[in-house]
Amino acid sequence: MIVTLLTDFGTRDYFVGAMKGAVLASNPRAQVVDITHEIPAHDIEAGAFTLLASFEAFPAGTVHVAVVDPGVGSARRAVAVETRGHTFVGPDNGVFGYVYERVESFAVHQLTNENYFRKDVSTTFHGRDVFAPVAGALSRGVAAEELGPRLSDFVRLPFARPERRADGVLEGRVIHVDRFGNCVTNFTPRDIPVEPFGRGMRMKVGGFEIEQLRRFFADERDAPGEPFAIWGSAGLLEIAVNLDSAARRLGVGRGQAVEVFGA
Amino acid sequence: MIVTLLTDFGTRDYFVGAMKGAVLASNPRAQVVDITHEIPAHDIEAGAFTLLASFEAFPAGTVHVAVVDPGVGSARRAVAVETRGHTFVGPDNGVFGYVYERVESFAVHQLTNENYFRKDVSTTFHGRDVFAPVAGALSRGVAAEELGPRLSDFVRLPFARPERRADGVLEGRVIHVDRFGNCVTNFTPRDIPVEPFGRGMRMKVGGFEIEQLRRFFADERDAPGEPFAIWGSAGLLEIAVNLDSAARRLGVGRGQAVEVFGA
Amino acid sequence: MIVTLLTDFGTRDYFVGAMKGAVLASNPRAQVVDITHEIPAHDIEAGAFTLLASFEAFPAGTVHVAVVDPGVGSARRAVAVETRGHTFVGPDNGVFGYVYERVESFAVHQLTNENYFRKDVSTTFHGRDVFAPVAGALSRGVAAEELGPRLSDFVRLPFARPERRADGVLEGRVIHVDRFGNCVTNFTPRDIPVEPFGRGMRMKVGGFEIEQLRRFFADERDAPGEPFAIWGSAGLLEIAVNLDSAARRLGVGRGQAVEVFGA
Repeated sequence: MIVTLLTDFGTRDYFVGAMKGAVLASNPRAQVVDITHEIPAHDIEAGAFTLLASFEAFPAGTVHVAVVDPGVGSARRAVAVETRGHTFVGPDNGVFGYVYERVESFAVHQLTNENYFRKDVSTTFHGRDVFAPVAGALSRGVAAEELGPRLSDFVRLPFARPERRADGVLEGRVIHVDRFGNCVTNFTPRDIPVEPFGRGMRMKVGGFEIEQLRRFFADERDAPGEPFAIWGSAGLLEIAVNLDSAARRLGVGRGQAVEVFGA
Repeated sequence: MIVTLLTDFGTRDYFVGAMKGAVLASNPRAQVVDITHEIPAHDIEAGAFTLLASFEAFPAGTVHVAVVDPGVGSARRAVAVETRGHTFVGPDNGVFGYVYERVESFAVHQLTNENYFRKDVSTTFHGRDVFAPVAGALSRGVAAEELGPRLSDFVRLPFARPERRADGVLEGRVIHVDRFGNCVTNFTPRDIPVEPFGRGMRMKVGGFEIEQLRRFFADERDAPGEPFAIWGSAGLLEIAVNLDSAARRLGVGRGQAVEVFGA
Repeated sequence: MIVTLLTDFGTRDYFVGAMKGAVLASNPRAQVVDITHEIPAHDIEAGAFTLLASFEAFPAGTVHVAVVDPGVGSARRAVAVETRGHTFVGPDNGVFGYVYERVESFAVHQLTNENYFRKDVSTTFHGRDVFAPVAGALSRGVAAEELGPRLSDFVRLPFARPERRADGVLEGRVIHVDRFGNCVTNFTPRDIPVEPFGRGMRMKVGGFEIEQLRRFFADERDAPGEPFAIWGSAGLLEIAVNLDSAARRLGVGRGQAVEVFGA
């Protein structure tokens, strides 16, 4: 009965209030929970990352609505994504791209059954008119199958997971830079050993070599300003510099390739 | 059991937290939902518009608290407004001015029964001490009649709805400019035909003539930079320019008169 | 079943969403309520003040989580504070310093029982991994005693309450400056008479003498620009100037000593 909201609407306008109302009109017993409404406007990747980093904390059965939707009113499809624990509702534009890589199995359904939409769907506000009422319906037990046909050609994100190149190098990406300048990559514990580097494994980012994988930020071996890798609280490998911005020191940003040798 | 909050308090201070506590102390089973706390300080019209544009999405039985209250501590009255579906609580200063025009019938009660207030009402924080506890009481079933006498001289907003002038012209106003520069007017589908203009109907705003009423933003007849009218997601007629700010291009802002000829 | 959140995380990142998820994973029936997430980063005193000024409005049984935690990952302890009406969860760094002075009796328990933590506690995000799951547990009825041993050497704030000096003067502090420039002190009605000054009682702040204690902001005796004392809506004595910033006019800020003579 929990419905979370993640949007790029900001909190000054009536948009978020109207969406909450539409969830509650569809299921008055839902508990509506804000994740954030401050995703940078139209930044699908940022929305996808924030959703990835927060959804797993919620209990099984939670419905997550994600509306970062530059294509509203165009031909982009609307979807519901059912996984074992959580359900997701939003545009089919990549905003669920990281979720697809994280969960074990999932089914994507296009939202076509207008019985679950608002009576009069506007062209500009599908958050209120499509996604919120559908989320309310899912939270009261409506099955994703009832919402529309299953899709197999849903939209993924290009760099959602690391890839093994022909030369054996594992190539990932920086997918987020946090406010401290830590560079969050798309490497998960499934991709590389959780244990500290060594035995020939090392990493290259923007011309820098990284030879340490730490489990803690502080380390007595610390050479000031030296970048290291660390498992972050989003469950992803981060590149950090103690007490400094790794992004600035390494001169890298989102999209930067990260190569792992010997993994 | 849903209680929404709309204020100009911002979210940095303790004010919103204390209001939520006061609602829940009055009705621990209420679900408290933020509409926004970022109405510009003391801007009653902006609060009135945001409330108008969001309240109808909520289910029947919702209690809406609106606190944009430059006159707190003065002689301005406090009211509860009962309509068929929703109840509203706040200062009697016009913040419900657009609601009065939208709903079919309503009754305004002055809040005089101090049994429903906080024990010690401060002079500066009626949000916590008057409006929140009253909203909690309404959400647990207390009737508006118990809160105080019915008022007939409640405060309306001056330009809440369009008026028919002696010369037959229908005169409305721009009541909100959104972040894209679209100019939201106070024309509703009851005032002018929902169907596209034509048969002699046209509109004048700030020296510009508008001859198109569209139902969609994109239109193959589009002349770049040409203003048009469109039904917006708040249920009101908006003046827009595709991919541009109508407010800037037409040089108009809130309060600007909008004339409709031939309606 | 109400769990409030107060942090310095801001609302742009995934941190608040993940914390809410962790509360709800621990107790899916909790109602999660935001107090604020905009405490200035690492400003323990500001968090302590905002908590003090809002917690009492909530009903008995509420669990309040406060995470302003510059020492996360270090040796600072984590605590739950049980009082007659409310329970508090957060770091043992002074963030509950004003609560300790306000409530009649309380017990502080160190959080050591890892059964109530997230399975894999990160070093950087105890909001999600320690405080939120513990708050969920408390909200579903787990006793504070089960969480860990009672502490007597918990961290207080240095200027949490006024002190009587050897010369008989009562010395307090400005503990908060609000957005209007009013200076909130740590004097409560227990410290000085609620009634207006007189009979020899007066106050000194930053070289200024204050001889008026008012119960209302406006006063016919008003000399423009003259500072006065007034009981504010947080239940604390404030120093104010009508229609002006007392902080600027008196040149004082947080931490400034406030002396009361003759009380």
